[in-house]
Amino acid sequence: MLNIKALTFDVFGTVVDWRSSIIAEGEAFAAGRGGALAEVDWNAFALAWRARYQPAMERVRAGETGFVKLDLLHRQNLEEVLDEFGLADLDEADRQNLNLIWHRLQPWPDTVAGLARLKQRFILATLSNGNVRLIVDMARHAGLPWDMVLGAEIAGHYKPQPQSYLNSAAVLDLEPSECLMVAAHNSDLVAAGTVGFATAFVCRPTEYGPDQDFDQAAENDFDFVADDFLHLAAQLGC
Amino acid sequence: MLNIKALTFDVFGTVVDWRSSIIAEGEAFAAGRGGALAEVDWNAFALAWRARYQPAMERVRAGETGFVKLDLLHRQNLEEVLDEFGLADLDEADRQNLNLIWHRLQPWPDTVAGLARLKQRFILATLSNGNVRLIVDMARHAGLPWDMVLGAEIAGHYKPQPQSYLNSAAVLDLEPSECLMVAAHNSDLVAAGTVGFATAFVCRPTEYGPDQDFDQAAENDFDFVADDFLHLAAQLGC
Repeated sequence: MLNIKALTFDVFGTVVDWRSSIIAEGEAFAAGRGGALAEVDWNAFALAWRARYQPAMERVRAGETGFVKLDLLHRQNLEEVLDEFGLADLDEADRQNLNLIWHRLQPWPDTVAGLARLKQRFILATLSNGNVRLIVDMARHAGLPWDMVLGAEIAGHYKPQPQSYLNSAAVLDLEPSECLMVAAHNSDLVAAGTVGFATAFVCRPTEYGPDQDFDQAAENDFDFVADDFLHLAAQLGC
Repeated sequence: MLNIKALTFDVFGTVVDWRSSIIAEGEAFAAGRGGALAEVDWNAFALAWRARYQPAMERVRAGETGFVKLDLLHRQNLEEVLDEFGLADLDEADRQNLNLIWHRLQPWPDTVAGLARLKQRFILATLSNGNVRLIVDMARHAGLPWDMVLGAEIAGHYKPQPQSYLNSAAVLDLEPSECLMVAAHNSDLVAAGTVGFATAFVCRPTEYGPDQDFDQAAENDFDFVADDFLHLAAQLGC
């Protein structure tokens, strides 16, 4: 019954492992430097930074400000996290470098091989809250073969607002039902499904670390449920 | 002095050979069919179709209508050309198939190898009047490794309007001077240069056929002048 022509991907957590990437980058950044930097728990730092993600976008979604690129929200959140971790004396170059970690996130082990298989049969687009330059830099860094970068910046709205999905489908000249939203987050898929997208849950049970106790399984009747991108490719006949 | 981070490409004529592609597709389409189809001069057909391109966009640029995707302008132009060539009885499926030729255009012989070299060092984006789905389909068909599809649909303005260039640079978070516009058309490069883009003329002297008597050489002081994409890659140190 499904007539899927494009796969649209959530990126942070679904395609890339932001937590491990920030830990690795943070530890490399701090290596050989003393003071408060030597004391940072980078796992806690990553989680604290990410915890400010939804509240920052919510200010945009609520109309308190016009659309702002995620790079800027990440930077505003970084300022707060640096204060919280006693790193208020980092200079501007260090702050810029840390903020660009999001442009250099590492894929999950199955990501690149899975996308290569899926691309043989479907248009592959991002449908992320990341801004275009962030997603483009990440793709070049990690070797992600997107046909198109869509999502919040192109749509002018942050997920889970309906326009983020609907405007993205419209750019591809596709009906929502011709787009399969791929995400590791139940809430993203529920929102996409509500506006008519097909849905695929890909489980990333350690996105937030070994103690993660949410998004461990599909909680709705999604069209596909997969352990990783290779498993999804197999289900889609790729 | 240049600090180029992205190459932005004109597509029709610069990246792909639309004339030869339409001739080949048209001849294959007509093969074995009689009537007026058997009599069509597909070179003349291609040129007639393309001749309606700028006037159609000019209606959008002049504000006579809101922004319309190029696929629709191509289709409106196709109706006129079919009438002109005595093909008014073609059915809807044939018309849709012909209009999609623009999604299946073939690259010039140097295009794919040249882009692969240029991609090692620069972000590669389209900055075309083609709509996103057209450019995405073409890229998948021809193997064009774009990092991002920009241009008219994303910018909301057709070239050579300044916003088409400036909005495209803004999506990449780049200054115009960090973008190198690559085109086979002097007028495109003059418009890009006026808003601060660096410029590269790549000569495609037979885009309109062996008798083409314009755009045979760079007519302004562009930053680069190249015989093809491999020559451009060499000049850019790729």
